[in-house]
Amino acid sequence: MEFCYNLPVNLIFGRGKADSIGEISSPYGKKALVVTGTGSTKRSGLLDRVTDSLEKAGIEYAVFDKVTQNPLTTTVYEGVYAAVMNQCDMILGVGGGSIMDAAKAIAFCCRNEGDISDYIFGRKQGRGALPIILIPTTCGTGSEGNQIAVLTNPDTMDKKALYTLEIMPKVSVVDPDVMKTMPVSVLSSVGFDAFTHALEAYTSKKANPVTDAQALTAMELLAENLPALVNGKGSDEAWDAVSLAATLGGMVIGAAGVSAAHGMEHPASGLKNIVHGRGLAALTPNIAERLAPALPCKFARVSRILGGTDEKDCADSIRRFLKSIDLSVTLGELGITPEDVPWMTENCMKISIGNLRNAPLEFSEEDVREIYLESI
Amino acid sequence: MEFCYNLPVNLIFGRGKADSIGEISSPYGKKALVVTGTGSTKRSGLLDRVTDSLEKAGIEYAVFDKVTQNPLTTTVYEGVYAAVMNQCDMILGVGGGSIMDAAKAIAFCCRNEGDISDYIFGRKQGRGALPIILIPTTCGTGSEGNQIAVLTNPDTMDKKALYTLEIMPKVSVVDPDVMKTMPVSVLSSVGFDAFTHALEAYTSKKANPVTDAQALTAMELLAENLPALVNGKGSDEAWDAVSLAATLGGMVIGAAGVSAAHGMEHPASGLKNIVHGRGLAALTPNIAERLAPALPCKFARVSRILGGTDEKDCADSIRRFLKSIDLSVTLGELGITPEDVPWMTENCMKISIGNLRNAPLEFSEEDVREIYLESI
Repeated sequence: MEFCYNLPVNLIFGRGKADSIGEISSPYGKKALVVTGTGSTKRSGLLDRVTDSLEKAGIEYAVFDKVTQNPLTTTVYEGVYAAVMNQCDMILGVGGGSIMDAAKAIAFCCRNEGDISDYIFGRKQGRGALPIILIPTTCGTGSEGNQIAVLTNPDTMDKKALYTLEIMPKVSVVDPDVMKTMPVSVLSSVGFDAFTHALEAYTSKKANPVTDAQALTAMELLAENLPALVNGKGSDEAWDAVSLAATLGGMVIGAAGVSAAHGMEHPASGLKNIVHGRGLAALTPNIAERLAPALPCKFARVSRILGGTDEKDCADSIRRFLKSIDLSVTLGELGITPEDVPWMTENCMKISIGNLRNAPLEFSEEDVREIYLESI
Repeated sequence: MEFCYNLPVNLIFGRGKADSIGEISSPYGKKALVVTGTGSTKRSGLLDRVTDSLEKAGIEYAVFDKVTQNPLTTTVYEGVYAAVMNQCDMILGVGGGSIMDAAKAIAFCCRNEGDISDYIFGRKQGRGALPIILIPTTCGTGSEGNQIAVLTNPDTMDKKALYTLEIMPKVSVVDPDVMKTMPVSVLSSVGFDAFTHALEAYTSKKANPVTDAQALTAMELLAENLPALVNGKGSDEAWDAVSLAATLGGMVIGAAGVSAAHGMEHPASGLKNIVHGRGLAALTPNIAERLAPALPCKFARVSRILGGTDEKDCADSIRRFLKSIDLSVTLGELGITPEDVPWMTENCMKISIGNLRNAPLEFSEEDVREIYLESI
């Protein structure tokens, strides 16, 4: 057994904690760039609560509200411009995974010049970033618990992660109350994203006993609580559980990585702007079908968490779980056609080979093509 | 549910990793004060391997080898003097819990002037410390995974923890191979210390689902592997498991704290220089007997991990586990007499009240006295 575990984020968890963001942020800077999306944090009133709290703590701020789903590298540069023009010395991301990832990348690019793709593809090593503070508003990505920011380059359509300890948030405030404004369709897809983080990290080649314990807890919490929430029967405790599970999912991929499903989903959502969790829903059962024989004990345990029996019915257990959260979908229903498969396959082998190698069984280009086709 | 989880230590785990300590330390300083004990790291050759690795990496060092069991605040001052005189800019602790705790306190006192007891008792707040790097040689204390250093003041005999994020190690190198030179009597007592860390954190008022997952993993690994190791039947994998469990135990008390058994053991070992794990062995079953009804689900789970049935036989399950690791002992056999109980009780209520309050049921002074007497 050999591993490295390094997740230096201060995780502050609890209902109502978002209202303390000013006090929590004060050790890290005097002026925050508040990175958020185009609508939901305004509509829900969260953005006002955050800026009120900053004002009360005597922290200045500027708002950058241009981040959209599957954030673009070009949007990151716009954010850097806003941070520099407003002389911000810390970045506060308030929103879902796209927003948190953009916030992290903006903080990084404020200290590292040039094309961010050079850092994403490892051609250059970065050093430093503005302090990053995050408030997730969706319980899915887990970006609040790791050093990963997934970005899409609009020139190449490459969707790939910036992966560096420099973008580990200093503090993440996980407030289950702020998740409650999510529409059900968003909840099911982000919740399944969280589930796959735990599943892929648990079955990854880089898994270790620390991440295994966290991943199992995350899967158990989601299996027990996500269906009730999606069906409108959730309690405060269920929101707590699902929020925590999402953060744990983020933490485990920070240490053990994602594998085949995430690697194969990125080309699809990079190409067609598909909702990430729905792309994962289309691919994960078919991938689990092929991976389970390579790691039977662990896939059997996953299956049992979902009410199944052993590794042989793991894929079906996942399909049943997807049905229970109203997320049964195919790539075809998401707009992917067989004509897209050659580009997606080629792109997957180019940008996601590291993820594929992290799976217990390494897929060939032919395997990838077949899985895409059977998932349409 | 509300909690804060902040354990920013880079954990590097694996057999043989101690030989890379030079390379691992190089980002943190140019000259290390190597803090170690009076004998075992020299006899085992580990100290030579460590200094060789430092030399190869171009790191200068001075050795401070005066730390003994239950380290004294006065020894810490000696270490600070050695660090200052040798112009060291980082502290490398190589040894068991006493040594790691002394190393952390030395690093702290190099940046914080005055009487360390003022910081221990919260009369002053410290800021900063030299970078701390640790190599544990016993799998018990878990000091490598937290921000705690337990020290004894020889003037007052108070044994109490310095508890501050400033002394979180930058890196801890957990190398199961270096544990193998431990005598069996040491192994059983440090292994049980690790078990109680997990048990007390799991049943603590500050427990949270992140620490629960880690604590359960730690208890499972110890229940499965410690008896075999103590009985000389251990494999490399068993050493891996027990080493990891000890680090997890340290991590969980860093976040969720210890409770009654540690709180009550410190006055005993502060007074009579008792081996910490043996003191815990004398007290823990009797304490579990009283606490189990207050938190039946969790004590039942602990009991089942140890082969028992439910919360009612948890204390007996712990007694059986102690027997399996040759650690059945009473406070009387450790030199405590009924005449010592009034001082220990008074001292416990003075220095350990925070620990007692962390238990699921708060003991009164009378409870503490009774448990001491029945444990003799």
